[in-house]
Amino acid sequence: MIDRLAALFGAQRAAGVTLGIGDDAAVLRPPAGRDLVWTVDTQIEGQHFRRAWLTLEDLGWRSFVAAASDLAALGAEPWCALASLGLTDDLGVDGLDALSGGQAEAAAAVGCPIVGGNLSRAGELSVTTTLLGTVDRAVGRSGARPGDGVWIVGEVGLSAAGLRAIVQGAHGADVDAAIARFRRPAVRIDSGRVLGRSAHAAIDISDGVARDAGHVASASHAAIVLDEEALLTHGGDVLARAAAAVGEPPIDLVLGGGEDYALLCAASDPLRGFTRVGEVEVGAGVWLRDHDGKRRLVDGRGFDHFDRRR
Amino acid sequence: MIDRLAALFGAQRAAGVTLGIGDDAAVLRPPAGRDLVWTVDTQIEGQHFRRAWLTLEDLGWRSFVAAASDLAALGAEPWCALASLGLTDDLGVDGLDALSGGQAEAAAAVGCPIVGGNLSRAGELSVTTTLLGTVDRAVGRSGARPGDGVWIVGEVGLSAAGLRAIVQGAHGADVDAAIARFRRPAVRIDSGRVLGRSAHAAIDISDGVARDAGHVASASHAAIVLDEEALLTHGGDVLARAAAAVGEPPIDLVLGGGEDYALLCAASDPLRGFTRVGEVEVGAGVWLRDHDGKRRLVDGRGFDHFDRRR
Repeated sequence: MIDRLAALFGAQRAAGVTLGIGDDAAVLRPPAGRDLVWTVDTQIEGQHFRRAWLTLEDLGWRSFVAAASDLAALGAEPWCALASLGLTDDLGVDGLDALSGGQAEAAAAVGCPIVGGNLSRAGELSVTTTLLGTVDRAVGRSGARPGDGVWIVGEVGLSAAGLRAIVQGAHGADVDAAIARFRRPAVRIDSGRVLGRSAHAAIDISDGVARDAGHVASASHAAIVLDEEALLTHGGDVLARAAAAVGEPPIDLVLGGGEDYALLCAASDPLRGFTRVGEVEVGAGVWLRDHDGKRRLVDGRGFDHFDRRR
Repeated sequence: MIDRLAALFGAQRAAGVTLGIGDDAAVLRPPAGRDLVWTVDTQIEGQHFRRAWLTLEDLGWRSFVAAASDLAALGAEPWCALASLGLTDDLGVDGLDALSGGQAEAAAAVGCPIVGGNLSRAGELSVTTTLLGTVDRAVGRSGARPGDGVWIVGEVGLSAAGLRAIVQGAHGADVDAAIARFRRPAVRIDSGRVLGRSAHAAIDISDGVARDAGHVASASHAAIVLDEEALLTHGGDVLARAAAAVGEPPIDLVLGGGEDYALLCAASDPLRGFTRVGEVEVGAGVWLRDHDGKRRLVDGRGFDHFDRRR
């Protein structure tokens, strides 16, 4: 199995890797003068996915892109990856080929070769991906400033609509794009480069806009006000039709549905390819402003209900 | 849960870490002019351990040391770690505290602070540990040369005896050290530094001396001849008594029993703290030489049975 993975993953070369798959560890020469960004993500059967929902190729792609999304959110350049697979007995060599094929495809799309890892037997299928990237200036969650715009790139809520469609057994033109997005989330590394140049704070949307914007608001000690109309316009017809087909208000999918791995950032000026969906204000929490200008709190972390200044 | 881990793990500071637990990724400044060594290891309930065999603190320790052992085998200096935990619902906060407490204890002993990670629900408990180390010259598996001595540091076979004792329900003076070794394998970073200065090839013993020496022999295109008497003398009374108590020949435990995370290396000169247990020869495979000088093949990988030169 290790030989198969070495042949597959070894076809993609990463700069500075002097010892790769097959030894106790990978040996790497880091580029001089840059910081490293390091993340790990685990996808577990029954928790993050069911095999009825997607192919093993999709799982390989999806697990890799989910981990790479953290690098994009920091504005980092992908470098290389390790993958640790927990393989169930029923998977066999064909299953391993499918899973690792999807990983290799994503690694190529992200520009982040897999240079090592670990194989274990397991009772439930799991994929752990750890990635190293490099960066001049890492964008964190804590730098959003009152007056900043809030910007977004990529679909939000569409993957959640796709999952609901799969569970409901829905198909057809209204939900196909949503289902495809759940199975194969997009790689946003280029957008990460864009936000890396000017954003004050950023995050990837893995748990829904409300919750992830809430991380930025609370780390930045600021309020984020999101514009409902701007979010729905950003979602467009594709989201509206998928939401209708699965019977959920599109704004609920946007606020609560994750795993599109869109990027959200706070920045003072427009960013190429990003849509403005709100602004940063003095205060706390994440608020949704409707077309009448009325606001409701959609994420209350960092919000002190006894704050006398309010 | 993340706050608890941030408080626990954050008490240990790693050099060059500018963004730690709580963001999308860790941000690190690598030491100039050194290579990085990067490894990942996963321990899964029902495969690598059962909860009846050890405490959650032991599991935390053991999973961390197992991963750190790969750094030691390359002669690397530990730097920092990420931990991805798959947590079952029954574990609760007390279970997380116990598990992460054992991890933190091992991280301190190894000198490798945990600077981030990932938490997931899971149907089976799992711990994935990924470590970065730094090194001037990484010792691989492929550099053993005919004429080198084969050297070992740390117990071999004792952990396997301990596991058998646990499964058999044996206890008492004969097996206590073995059980302790299974639950809390030793940290061998200092010995890794020693072999890093002069060894031609090295590996940690996770699958038994026969199999792991076999990796070195096959990567180095050489034969390794192990001396039975030297191995048993190295195991000493502690191994002999534990082996007798669990009813297995001590040499079988040495050759087939892993998870002591001893270090084995090939080097031309003696290494401080290491015991000589054999030598590298022209040829292939791993051979055991008994006190009469008779040899038997104990690992045949890389061995061509049709080789006419034999």
